[in-house]
Amino acid sequence: MQKSDGRQLVSGRLRMSGETVRSRTTLTICRTCRPEGGPSEAEPPGAALGRAAAEAARRLGPEAGVEVRAIPCLSACGRACSASVSAPEKFSYVIGGLAPEDAGDLVAFARAHAESADGVPPWRARPEKVRKNTVARVPPAGCDHALVEEVREAEDVIPGR
Amino acid sequence: MQKSDGRQLVSGRLRMSGETVRSRTTLTICRTCRPEGGPSEAEPPGAALGRAAAEAARRLGPEAGVEVRAIPCLSACGRACSASVSAPEKFSYVIGGLAPEDAGDLVAFARAHAESADGVPPWRARPEKVRKNTVARVPPAGCDHALVEEVREAEDVIPGR
Repeated sequence: MQKSDGRQLVSGRLRMSGETVRSRTTLTICRTCRPEGGPSEAEPPGAALGRAAAEAARRLGPEAGVEVRAIPCLSACGRACSASVSAPEKFSYVIGGLAPEDAGDLVAFARAHAESADGVPPWRARPEKVRKNTVARVPPAGCDHALVEEVREAEDVIPGR
Repeated sequence: MQKSDGRQLVSGRLRMSGETVRSRTTLTICRTCRPEGGPSEAEPPGAALGRAAAEAARRLGPEAGVEVRAIPCLSACGRACSASVSAPEKFSYVIGGLAPEDAGDLVAFARAHAESADGVPPWRARPEKVRKNTVARVPPAGCDHALVEEVREAEDVIPGR
């Protein structure tokens, strides 16, 4: 796909004058998340998770393509601590059930998302914590994707997952 | 914001030669969703929800700006039936706990999403079913938004929601 600035998006990476630059993935962490029944210490664990994730992304370096942001709420309060993983024209993911010590796994998943063409990292690239705590994924808006179809009429429905 | 085709995005609506066109919101419905413990009839309720939503969107007409698509899985199986609501450069939402009879409420929420500037519809525009079954929201990737912040250092953290 040709971008307006002359760069070309190839398998999720921006290619410019022969050089391949990974597209950026944003990890957005709810900074007010506090798991139900957890201790009510002054600082929400979501804020500590955000700092730990920012530090983990810094250690990987800018070439990993992961940037970390904070938000006051992801409306996933029942699955605290929560984070979203997104990039333009890719699937987004929401991950829940996180603690500050999961920052490394979360950033590893975001890196795999940045490396993937469509935002759906291969199963083997997803840390177990992320596999078991995926809250939802959202298809990219305004883009075609093989997974997104027209609504089928009743007679065409194939039952099953 | 100026779009590459000369149109201008004003408060979430595309304005062209003085005419205001609402931006399109995509409602993507998991067609294999089957609530846990529900009857195992041949057709998953998610498929029936998709058809009912497509019919509800057709009744509203194209000026409502809602298009309905299907997907084999939104990775929100624990909250079946589920749907995502998204548009380029806006917040996305995932709604769960839906049944085919909720199609009208779901499409009304998607219409409010299309009308909103940033994909965050006002509370009063959200049907109760949607308010009570919001699984998560995802901030738009690659865009600035007042809700998305830099990660704060520990000393700057303001506790609370």
